Amino acid sequence: MKKSIGAKTIAYPTPVWVIGSYDNQGNPNVMTAAWGGVCCSEPPCVGVSLRKQRYSYPNIEKRKAFTVNIPSQTHAKEADYFGLVSGSKVDKFTESGLTPVKSDTVDAPYVEEFPLVLECRVIQTVEIGIHVQFIGEIIDVKADESVLGEEGFPDIEKVKPIIFAPGTRTYHGIGSYIGKAFSIGK
Amino acid sequence: MKKSIGAKTIAYPTPVWVIGSYDNQGNPNVMTAAWGGVCCSEPPCVGVSLRKQRYSYPNIEKRKAFTVNIPSQTHAKEADYFGLVSGSKVDKFTESGLTPVKSDTVDAPYVEEFPLVLECRVIQTVEIGIHVQFIGEIIDVKADESVLGEEGFPDIEKVKPIIFAPGTRTYHGIGSYIGKAFSIGK
Repeated sequence: MKKSIGAKTIAYPTPVWVIGSYDNQGNPNVMTAAWGGVCCSEPPCVGVSLRKQRYSYPNIEKRKAFTVNIPSQTHAKEADYFGLVSGSKVDKFTESGLTPVKSDTVDAPYVEEFPLVLECRVIQTVEIGIHVQFIGEIIDVKADESVLGEEGFPDIEKVKPIIFAPGTRTYHGIGSYIGKAFSIGK
Repeated sequence: MKKSIGAKTIAYPTPVWVIGSYDNQGNPNVMTAAWGGVCCSEPPCVGVSLRKQRYSYPNIEKRKAFTVNIPSQTHAKEADYFGLVSGSKVDKFTESGLTPVKSDTVDAPYVEEFPLVLECRVIQTVEIGIHVQFIGEIIDVKADESVLGEEGFPDIEKVKPIIFAPGTRTYHGIGSYIGKAFSIGK
């Protein structure tokens, strides 16, 4: 017997993604988002939801571009900080000491120190409620060579992404290997 | 210096969610989806992307309802199985031995044995590419009492959700606690 806990955004896992964009003056900015996910295989796309009042919102809307930067858990403090302050007040790159790099495929900056980056071009904007979802086509994925595994794909155990748990509002690491997808259920 | 690995749907973490729906005959069906995420806080919504040829697609389109069932890692085999076979050929509940329960808030079934369920009503359908995204308003969340923590929210370390890593196509568990969100970055 299950207990009803109401209409809440409680789902696991949710990501801790740092969204990069350029503002009106061409300054790089980052914000943290947990409301996002892959939403299409072909074209490869991710959806990321922002509130319109976020400093990043008009940046992404105007340049039709953003990056999804996946922090390793060693940068959990910086990732949390990027969600606590607004780019309208502080230069988050300067304050955190992290390094913005201009993407060579889209008009947005990425975070050099984070191991995995998706460079995205906005192809749809979906008004939902207090959040608007940007659907970005993934133009390129860039990864630190140190996190690549044998098959040339990033190894999640080396990337060590952060998992956000809504409700308890806590961060968690990646755990142990369970098995191969499209295989263990056969 | 980062290495380009191309335009791929590689992002971490992605969820392992089991989507419940009723077919034309009123039979309960489930399919596994990793392309999804929370997409709005108010109204509380999740987005889940399906290919149109999936057996679940017309079910959800017609009844405007689905459930997001979050399996614990003890049910990783069943979750994988639900993504390997089609409901047009087999009754996945009968085959897996799991139990369908009719939601009391939306016209869709949930999986009794999975610890956390989101009951959703479709409010938007977004055509993207080979996937179509259903945006579902979360009407209720139901959880096993055994996974609830002190604050009344599900405890992710008790739910033990499965994390899917695209690219390597592997499943992973939830890891250790890192810290409090909206706090450790102060």
